[in-house]
Amino acid sequence: MALDIHRRSGGRSARRAARTAHDFTMLPGLTNSLPLCEIMDGAQVARIDAASMDILENVGVVFRDDIALEDWRRAGAKVEGETVFLDRGLVRDLIATIPERFTYHARNPVNNVDLGGNKSVFVPMTGAPYLRDLEDVRRNPTLDDLAMFHKLSHMMPAMHSSAHHIVEPYDHPISQRHLRITYSSMKYSDKMFMGMTTSPKNAEDVLDMCAILFGEEFLETHAVVTGNCNGNSPLVWDETMLGAMRAFCRRNQPVLCSPFVLGGANTPASVAASVAQLNAEALSALAYTQVIRKGAPAIYGHYLSTVSMRSGAPMAGTPEISLMNFMIGQMARYYGVPWRTSNTLGGAKTFDAQAGYESATTLSAVMHAGANYIWHSAGWNEAGMHCSVAKFIVDAEQCAMAYRMAEGVKWNDFDAALAAVPDVGPGGHYLGHPHTHENFQEAFFMPEMFDNNSIEQWAAEGSVEITQRALNHAKQLLKAYEEPKLDVAKNEELLAYIARREREIPAADALNQEF
Amino acid sequence: MALDIHRRSGGRSARRAARTAHDFTMLPGLTNSLPLCEIMDGAQVARIDAASMDILENVGVVFRDDIALEDWRRAGAKVEGETVFLDRGLVRDLIATIPERFTYHARNPVNNVDLGGNKSVFVPMTGAPYLRDLEDVRRNPTLDDLAMFHKLSHMMPAMHSSAHHIVEPYDHPISQRHLRITYSSMKYSDKMFMGMTTSPKNAEDVLDMCAILFGEEFLETHAVVTGNCNGNSPLVWDETMLGAMRAFCRRNQPVLCSPFVLGGANTPASVAASVAQLNAEALSALAYTQVIRKGAPAIYGHYLSTVSMRSGAPMAGTPEISLMNFMIGQMARYYGVPWRTSNTLGGAKTFDAQAGYESATTLSAVMHAGANYIWHSAGWNEAGMHCSVAKFIVDAEQCAMAYRMAEGVKWNDFDAALAAVPDVGPGGHYLGHPHTHENFQEAFFMPEMFDNNSIEQWAAEGSVEITQRALNHAKQLLKAYEEPKLDVAKNEELLAYIARREREIPAADALNQEF
Repeated sequence: MALDIHRRSGGRSARRAARTAHDFTMLPGLTNSLPLCEIMDGAQVARIDAASMDILENVGVVFRDDIALEDWRRAGAKVEGETVFLDRGLVRDLIATIPERFTYHARNPVNNVDLGGNKSVFVPMTGAPYLRDLEDVRRNPTLDDLAMFHKLSHMMPAMHSSAHHIVEPYDHPISQRHLRITYSSMKYSDKMFMGMTTSPKNAEDVLDMCAILFGEEFLETHAVVTGNCNGNSPLVWDETMLGAMRAFCRRNQPVLCSPFVLGGANTPASVAASVAQLNAEALSALAYTQVIRKGAPAIYGHYLSTVSMRSGAPMAGTPEISLMNFMIGQMARYYGVPWRTSNTLGGAKTFDAQAGYESATTLSAVMHAGANYIWHSAGWNEAGMHCSVAKFIVDAEQCAMAYRMAEGVKWNDFDAALAAVPDVGPGGHYLGHPHTHENFQEAFFMPEMFDNNSIEQWAAEGSVEITQRALNHAKQLLKAYEEPKLDVAKNEELLAYIARREREIPAADALNQEF
Repeated sequence: MALDIHRRSGGRSARRAARTAHDFTMLPGLTNSLPLCEIMDGAQVARIDAASMDILENVGVVFRDDIALEDWRRAGAKVEGETVFLDRGLVRDLIATIPERFTYHARNPVNNVDLGGNKSVFVPMTGAPYLRDLEDVRRNPTLDDLAMFHKLSHMMPAMHSSAHHIVEPYDHPISQRHLRITYSSMKYSDKMFMGMTTSPKNAEDVLDMCAILFGEEFLETHAVVTGNCNGNSPLVWDETMLGAMRAFCRRNQPVLCSPFVLGGANTPASVAASVAQLNAEALSALAYTQVIRKGAPAIYGHYLSTVSMRSGAPMAGTPEISLMNFMIGQMARYYGVPWRTSNTLGGAKTFDAQAGYESATTLSAVMHAGANYIWHSAGWNEAGMHCSVAKFIVDAEQCAMAYRMAEGVKWNDFDAALAAVPDVGPGGHYLGHPHTHENFQEAFFMPEMFDNNSIEQWAAEGSVEITQRALNHAKQLLKAYEEPKLDVAKNEELLAYIARREREIPAADALNQEF
């Protein structure tokens, strides 16, 4: 059966075909219209909240940072050594000023997105010390590889961000790397991006560069860059993260407050109790953002895995991670704070079926959980140790499919479509009906990375498995890439800033000294 | 980090370890406690219902079968030629007598399962003309291969059924094949199974064999075997299927009334209108089951794909299939009828990442849709053209994980788990805490088929990808297989029945003559 629908010209289908084949326009920020998987009733939400508040009041949270301890004392918290005991009333007062929704600005305003409530975005993975490259070879990445991922992020419609260090550029001194990473995010894509938080000073550099790109005053009233701050579960925030957090909050830029949970290793062996602890940790950091600057945007975050009994390694795609995502979504909505989750986490060493199961299970769970900032949405493999080009392409298409699902059922065409039923009648077929020609592409998503041909045709075409198909697609995309040029004056200012800072920051011995 | 939790002896964890490592006990029928993804509001459900009833009243359904046409005339429907026009009042009256829930009986009563409402089961794939075998070689299957899949179905805890022709046994004449298939289902597993519907007479043979196994009178009041009847969308039921349907209904055995939907090819190019047509088709067959025998159990079914514009091939794992599953679940619940869906549909040619994405996406959707009879839950690949041993094992474990997710959050241990938080305190770890030792295995599912080791350890162990891991596991299972012996007298009676029928049914020229 051969359909020639896509060869027809004119009308809506032709416009669609043109758009899907050659247009890399970003999908607007997602409005998730799914009824969410609210797995807890009101009493259970209250029970998690009460347990978290008990932890904050009675166990306390360690802030390994003198400035934060002093800030907390001034804010009225009880501080003993490095442990801060947070009264639930104080916590509730503080988090009440976090905006429920905000707009995240890109340098191309067309690519601005909303965040919070039912507004969500897909952000690619970051932080990989290795990549699997365009030939599927696993090796250390370079600045050129990072640029490649920023270009692919720019071109995949369901990616809303170019993020930051998708891969770690090993060919540049670590002490200066944050400058080149930020510039790469800014240069190769005009979508929103993320900022490095590897030290308070590095965070300041990122924000200074953002001030060049957007204007210092613009930053005061607009979110343009997000920093991620990981907690050390259980119940510790360290100096590096807190310093970076202050840099972002002071300039009114949103921070992801992300407890780093290895379920069963640094949380109790219980889904519900793990969520209670994680929730306490997230609340303590969210509250601190408001101590730093009242009203600053902030995001309830987490990195979430369970650990393998065999090796202690993080696991993904497990049922408990789905359940915890459902619960955390409810808690974040209860507090009225946008929330971040992780998407395609998984431990496969190659882009095999394990990677597919893990990624699709996680993607589905976070959609039904109603996550807002859906990070690590493309490329993640091997527990984050490498970013796979092939998987990046397929994950990004999967996100486009999830996006379509979350848009829900379209009813606008219902009556017109039904009118075709008597036309075709019992035993007929719809392929020749005008309504089908006009609406097929609109109605049904056709994934490009899935091969649905017969095995005979597949074999005749070289028995190409999905990894190679995706790599071929990546190569085609990169050939078609067009750089969204930076403003000439701003570009020069950014390069001058980087040159100055690279003179100031010693590079010696810093190359490849750490991961 | 090495955890030695699994080496400890005594206590609940040891009992769990023993159970998970060496016990193949079937998980009880699933109680799905997830809040379902009800994507339509009440008005939209009513709109689908009204559209379907309009189709039944005004377009009509073709029943290509003289007996059915006569039955419909007697039941009061308007019949013109082969087209039956069904008044909505008649349809509602008829389907009202379908049981909302029933128990599906296995020859081992421990393996009985409930179906309907929030009670669900996982059933392996069936109907594959090829298999990928224990060496991942693609070839035509034999009766021995079928027996192997029945053994694996018996041993995988999340599979609730041994189904019927998981693979087509090509080494036996097609005209007699249904006898050997049924015997294989009965012999190698004591879980519930399915019955062939390849002709009315074949269906009678299946039911006669069930009467031997369970007793004729037992069948009158207990469901012991399910037959699937596919519709020819749009709006046609054929003689073979209707004859088989009568055979099952007359003996009070449930039929899956399954429109066969290739979205956009044999339905309108619209998700909502496709569901309206599918719903009309399902209702027409469900109503006919009650014309045949009032009160007989019946199941709202469907096979559901969208078609590729490029090749016309069926696609799976697409957003529209998830949306349609959500909608169909709502319609089936609206009518109070248990419903069947398909699980791991997909078009990958090998067990690659495509297969993983497709299967996990579908599994997740059907869980959130609240499907009752979750068919094709293990092994399906290449659009059903082959059943993969490797994929069978992994899919079955995925179903066990989905089962765990659908059980929901366990609160019984919440307070005890929380008590560990002050014990461990900020910066500590839970691996040494007694609560962790006691509860780790209970709290967190650890998939055996996912490898979460470091790449160095994975390489040291031979860089074994998931296909080979699953095949190794299948070989271990088959070594450990113990046949749940049939009652000696019943076994002899079954064999005598088969011998007699094989003398009566001509085998000549029938071998391999069709797929």
